[in-house]
Amino acid sequence: MTPPSAARTPDDAGGAGGDARSGAKGSLTPRGRDFPRWYQEVVARAELADNGPVRGTMVIRPWGYEIWERLQAAIDERIKAAGAHNAYFPLFIPEAFMRLEAEHVEGFDPELWVVTHGGGKQLEEPVVVRPTSETVINHFFAKWVQSHRDLPLLINQWSNVVRWELRPRLFLRTTEFLWQEGHTAHADEAGARAYALQILTDVYQETMEEVAAIPVLVGHKTARERFAGAVRTWTCESMMGDGKALQMGTSHELGQNFARAFGIQYADTSGALRYVWQTSWGASTRLIGALIMAHGDDYGLRLPPALAPVEVVVLVVRDDEDAHRAAAQIADDLRRSGRRVHLDARTDSGFGRRSVDWELKGVPVRVEVGPRELAEGHVTLVTRHLRSKDAVGIGALADTVATVLSRVGRDLHQEALAFRIDRTAEAAGLAEAKEIGASGFARVPWAEIGEQGEAELAGSALSVRCLQHGDGGLASAQDPDSSLIAVVGRAY
Amino acid sequence: MTPPSAARTPDDAGGAGGDARSGAKGSLTPRGRDFPRWYQEVVARAELADNGPVRGTMVIRPWGYEIWERLQAAIDERIKAAGAHNAYFPLFIPEAFMRLEAEHVEGFDPELWVVTHGGGKQLEEPVVVRPTSETVINHFFAKWVQSHRDLPLLINQWSNVVRWELRPRLFLRTTEFLWQEGHTAHADEAGARAYALQILTDVYQETMEEVAAIPVLVGHKTARERFAGAVRTWTCESMMGDGKALQMGTSHELGQNFARAFGIQYADTSGALRYVWQTSWGASTRLIGALIMAHGDDYGLRLPPALAPVEVVVLVVRDDEDAHRAAAQIADDLRRSGRRVHLDARTDSGFGRRSVDWELKGVPVRVEVGPRELAEGHVTLVTRHLRSKDAVGIGALADTVATVLSRVGRDLHQEALAFRIDRTAEAAGLAEAKEIGASGFARVPWAEIGEQGEAELAGSALSVRCLQHGDGGLASAQDPDSSLIAVVGRAY
Repeated sequence: MTPPSAARTPDDAGGAGGDARSGAKGSLTPRGRDFPRWYQEVVARAELADNGPVRGTMVIRPWGYEIWERLQAAIDERIKAAGAHNAYFPLFIPEAFMRLEAEHVEGFDPELWVVTHGGGKQLEEPVVVRPTSETVINHFFAKWVQSHRDLPLLINQWSNVVRWELRPRLFLRTTEFLWQEGHTAHADEAGARAYALQILTDVYQETMEEVAAIPVLVGHKTARERFAGAVRTWTCESMMGDGKALQMGTSHELGQNFARAFGIQYADTSGALRYVWQTSWGASTRLIGALIMAHGDDYGLRLPPALAPVEVVVLVVRDDEDAHRAAAQIADDLRRSGRRVHLDARTDSGFGRRSVDWELKGVPVRVEVGPRELAEGHVTLVTRHLRSKDAVGIGALADTVATVLSRVGRDLHQEALAFRIDRTAEAAGLAEAKEIGASGFARVPWAEIGEQGEAELAGSALSVRCLQHGDGGLASAQDPDSSLIAVVGRAY
Repeated sequence: MTPPSAARTPDDAGGAGGDARSGAKGSLTPRGRDFPRWYQEVVARAELADNGPVRGTMVIRPWGYEIWERLQAAIDERIKAAGAHNAYFPLFIPEAFMRLEAEHVEGFDPELWVVTHGGGKQLEEPVVVRPTSETVINHFFAKWVQSHRDLPLLINQWSNVVRWELRPRLFLRTTEFLWQEGHTAHADEAGARAYALQILTDVYQETMEEVAAIPVLVGHKTARERFAGAVRTWTCESMMGDGKALQMGTSHELGQNFARAFGIQYADTSGALRYVWQTSWGASTRLIGALIMAHGDDYGLRLPPALAPVEVVVLVVRDDEDAHRAAAQIADDLRRSGRRVHLDARTDSGFGRRSVDWELKGVPVRVEVGPRELAEGHVTLVTRHLRSKDAVGIGALADTVATVLSRVGRDLHQEALAFRIDRTAEAAGLAEAKEIGASGFARVPWAEIGEQGEAELAGSALSVRCLQHGDGGLASAQDPDSSLIAVVGRAY
């Protein structure tokens, strides 16, 4: 993941047309020196998010939120294509609901935020601020599902949820986050399983690979790692720029666990009452953290165009009438060619500082318009992910921009994939898996680890990220876990 | 607003091709008999929303939520065109924030829901679940605004908010609702005023008139009715099918009230520190309630195509191979012509019941495909808002559907406007205003009412909905209120 020109410091990026840099806020901490600090600096300086006044909460600033809107649209489009409908369930849940599913109390109790007062007085029954909407959605499923004609029932919700967080970190682990949670009910086990897998691959994997340009491993969780209410948890896992793993999205087969707890039954064609089979699945604003850590370099964010709030920024290098006019014209032309363009004509701020800021924000292409170059009939095109600069004739600009933008996503994906392959190795047993997993992914036969070995991994802050076939394929219902490969790594 | 065929009962709607109706759940309570009950029945039977388990909360079901998604997209597009950026601020606000603005404590205290416990123990400081994000957004504005270069700062947020609600009513007044709130900071008063008006007319009024097909009156609130923190509150008001008024969206000029309370200052070009001038503005899921009450008839919802989850439903009248095949083909063809189409081939349910359900849900066009008509080369096209039926040759169907859909919004708007005009009258003074306002809108010189008269109106459950020029135009900053007309009515 080392960028081609990483040997240069940000100050070497230089100004177009020989303009002096000024006002740069200073370099980021290099990723190799202190990755967590680099991450914090990128989040702050690219104006992605800020800490909220209540511990662990976050303010998602416009640049971060627009990335989220684009991720959300990509996921939402695919969820709808999979036949699910969006709905909205209440933020407040009666405390009693949290006790309906025994396993749940243990899973959530210390995580809950509880409202005890409303309308100026103490509530008769405290209400919980939703950590998920699982209980309330299942409560309504029990009302809405009566007949086999009501199935499958495919519901998704976009909302905020809150959980008590001891060590919050912007986007990755926050008290409140934004997410979608899907909940479905099916007439039989095969239908539920197929749907959980469809969401895993057609919604999550496809969005992550094709929209966010992040390669993911797919597989299922071990019993230790899976969601308490699930019989199988499918997951997308990816490797960040420090070799650690990030869980990007999960899709659960729930069997009939919730159906029994909430009494969700349907009359089949013969009139007999049967419990439904269910799935649930979610992805969150954590994906913005993944985007930062999978693609970022020592100069800041690198955004795939599909998620970039701005695809092309056109900068007026300095206060010159011709430059202003030409830049405005170029911005208009690029907009007309269908690009999301921002014109930066703030020549009362230093050009160097503005360049560094747009680089930090990860805008895929910068077009720098200075009077000296303009006189020669060209402008400077800076390709953010390569940090390369090219003089481009104004007549060829729209085509060149289109060509550059069309390769960004592919390049970022390939670079992240090459990095993951480089940091992944086969391990014969537990000891080797620990060593490799400390800075990347170890692939080791699950039979060599087992639940005993898994507990030992936890002692080294390692975990089994997923189980899969040796060729990376998903296990079928018939495959015993003992025939599968475990991917071991350190997780966020 | 009486539908042309209101003399018919729902059962007369009849089945195409002579099929018997069966399984209809029974008629709605007529609007004229009990409007609130009619409203509740429509919300429930069109599957728009359900009561949540915590008092006053609501579940927005897929049909209602998809209407909301379309409204939201229409508003969001216009907010972005006005230059504002979306962001997200935390759900939890320190209780101390609510005391920063003195007027606020009085305005909100009994409305607040307060979290006192988290992580299994009592919190050191209670946190409030946001009733609006005003305080936290202004807290960040004070950090983000430093220089005149940072202005205007134009921020919008889509989120849930909660307020203690004594008499909740689905969509209209709920403990939790979804909304957008915009907050902006400007260098001068004129900039703030112009922006507040731009949002009023270009975002709210345009969405309501052109997308929701609801005619609105625009004007500003009296001192009694305006938002506590504002110097002027602009509003969109519309008349519901019972003659009552619904406030659809408000846009506030805040002057420097919040700037002083939160210390939001900028350095002007000379380096002097000045307080910013602000606006805020919001619209909510209450608009779904407006849509129901402005357009609904005794047979249920009537949706303008722009907001309808489904524009055309194609129904197979009865289980017949040719009918199934032809209906599927018709649905495909209509989809290809760009329509949102649903194919209802559930011939195991009675045709009559299905027709009534789609009518309840307000789908603008139904195409009924039955074997008898098919043999004659035609299908039945039902235009929901007119409740008219036409035999249409299959070859002409796509064009006929396009023509019908293109007139629905216009027709609904005209009908609602005619109703409002019919229920609006000039009043010379307070006594007349009371009489007219009891079942519609009274237009009366504000000078004839005054604050004294306004208090008296309140005693009759009436209020001044807005002040405007005699010709319906907005007052300028120079117009004294005493030169304006007050629109008096009963409000939701």
